[in-house]
Amino acid sequence: MTGKPPDPLFGRIALIGIGLIGSSLARVIRRDGLARHIAVAARTQGTLDKAVELGLADSVTLDARDAARDADLVVLCTPLGAYAPIATDIGPALKPGAIVSDVGSVKQAVIRDVEPHLPKGVHLVPAHPVAGTEHSGPESGFAELFDGRWCILTPAAGTDAQAVERVKALWQRAGMLIETMDAEHHDQVLAITSHLPHLIAYTIVGTATDLEDYLKSEVIKYSAGGFRDFTRIAASDPVMWRDVFLNNREAVLEMLGRFSEDLTAVQRAIRRGEGDTLHEIFTRARELRRGVIAAKQA
Amino acid sequence: MTGKPPDPLFGRIALIGIGLIGSSLARVIRRDGLARHIAVAARTQGTLDKAVELGLADSVTLDARDAARDADLVVLCTPLGAYAPIATDIGPALKPGAIVSDVGSVKQAVIRDVEPHLPKGVHLVPAHPVAGTEHSGPESGFAELFDGRWCILTPAAGTDAQAVERVKALWQRAGMLIETMDAEHHDQVLAITSHLPHLIAYTIVGTATDLEDYLKSEVIKYSAGGFRDFTRIAASDPVMWRDVFLNNREAVLEMLGRFSEDLTAVQRAIRRGEGDTLHEIFTRARELRRGVIAAKQA
Repeated sequence: MTGKPPDPLFGRIALIGIGLIGSSLARVIRRDGLARHIAVAARTQGTLDKAVELGLADSVTLDARDAARDADLVVLCTPLGAYAPIATDIGPALKPGAIVSDVGSVKQAVIRDVEPHLPKGVHLVPAHPVAGTEHSGPESGFAELFDGRWCILTPAAGTDAQAVERVKALWQRAGMLIETMDAEHHDQVLAITSHLPHLIAYTIVGTATDLEDYLKSEVIKYSAGGFRDFTRIAASDPVMWRDVFLNNREAVLEMLGRFSEDLTAVQRAIRRGEGDTLHEIFTRARELRRGVIAAKQA
Repeated sequence: MTGKPPDPLFGRIALIGIGLIGSSLARVIRRDGLARHIAVAARTQGTLDKAVELGLADSVTLDARDAARDADLVVLCTPLGAYAPIATDIGPALKPGAIVSDVGSVKQAVIRDVEPHLPKGVHLVPAHPVAGTEHSGPESGFAELFDGRWCILTPAAGTDAQAVERVKALWQRAGMLIETMDAEHHDQVLAITSHLPHLIAYTIVGTATDLEDYLKSEVIKYSAGGFRDFTRIAASDPVMWRDVFLNNREAVLEMLGRFSEDLTAVQRAIRRGEGDTLHEIFTRARELRRGVIAAKQA
């Protein structure tokens, strides 16, 4: 890569959905001139107005098909549950050679829900930029969100190599490291590194919400003792996460089963006063943290 | 309070233990001139050398009794499991009118383990500054750690009011807001806001540590999806936390029981594909986050 901005990677990019990830990607595309035209589709006029106000779109529409027409790259940036209807809708409007990608946190579901609706000659390159914050909406995005994080591509075997390279190039320009793996493996890994942590955070915050009134106000007051970190994670978009759990059911239930067994073992150690067991579990956990720091993902 | 630094609150303060909390408190005492002399006791010479090097101590000793002798205030800053032997050790050296306090995350245990060893005329004022990071040791402390957070005092009924006021004044100078409650209530509240979150974080990191090798390296690589926040919490001192769970057993098991029930309900909703149930749980959790932000504890 040279210091000079390269030619646009794409002529027209259509972003279907413009929340935290979509709007962050739009900012990267703008910053580096990666497309000649950004077409944004969203479900409400308010979101579209916001996208225009933030300078993230060259054209906006409530009709995903309009945005996708003549696009060289279409990126689905909505919750997973919307993929199938969107793919059904935009399929007929896609031009030959167009690339369809996404940013979702589950990848087998993309292949299941999107692939059948794409015309011959359109390339599906599912992608997952593993980055985020607890904030939602177009105003919460920022171009640096992806910097130094991993983007996982899960193209099916036999996918057009050039299409994969172009999606790869886009996320590299966003500052991401790229890994390619099959969709099933992706869904297993993310079940433990992302889906289960969110599920647990949502659950414990729910447990606190259900406390007797005399305890509940104090939970907020003294949340600096650790709880507030869980509330932050549990502030993520409910629709997005509902769709993640509904679409990665098997892998999440498998990891949840393992976690529950481990939690029962810890519970038993506390009840029996087995300090050595607790100390060993806690010490091992600390070691894994060192790995995260060493991998520069802290 | 005026702009002028007040007279020292105490003549001699003895800090027994000089980790994250003890060293942060020492920095506050130094910064504001809150004591004429800071005596530091620790278990290893290396820790004492570090305390001297950091300018946190006027005198250092491996003998807690030496540090406590003639002290106006003794603050226990060790893991909870060390309280009983330390109290036994220092009790006979305490001068009449001395105040004994602590910084531990469980408060009924302090009364149980320390009170019986204090001579008549010595005042026990248990305290819990609800603040911290995942780092340990004297070098990890900083004076601003306590700023804007809550400090909970749990003096027994009938405790000398002036002694309570002096401990309160100390933590106010550290920037803390003060609340007083009974020890049992404290232990219940902290079980959900601090102890259970740490237990869950340790457990899920343990679950990940036990994964098959082909998944394990990837857990670290893709930890930015949520898992890394849990690894941070699980990096906290294993001995300190072992002692918290052993000493707040009933309240932690009670909250853990509620959490497990809720987790089972979430698991059931995922297995049955009940999106509405998930959406409702996630939406309620998000609302509690707003409360944390409004309370300036985010």
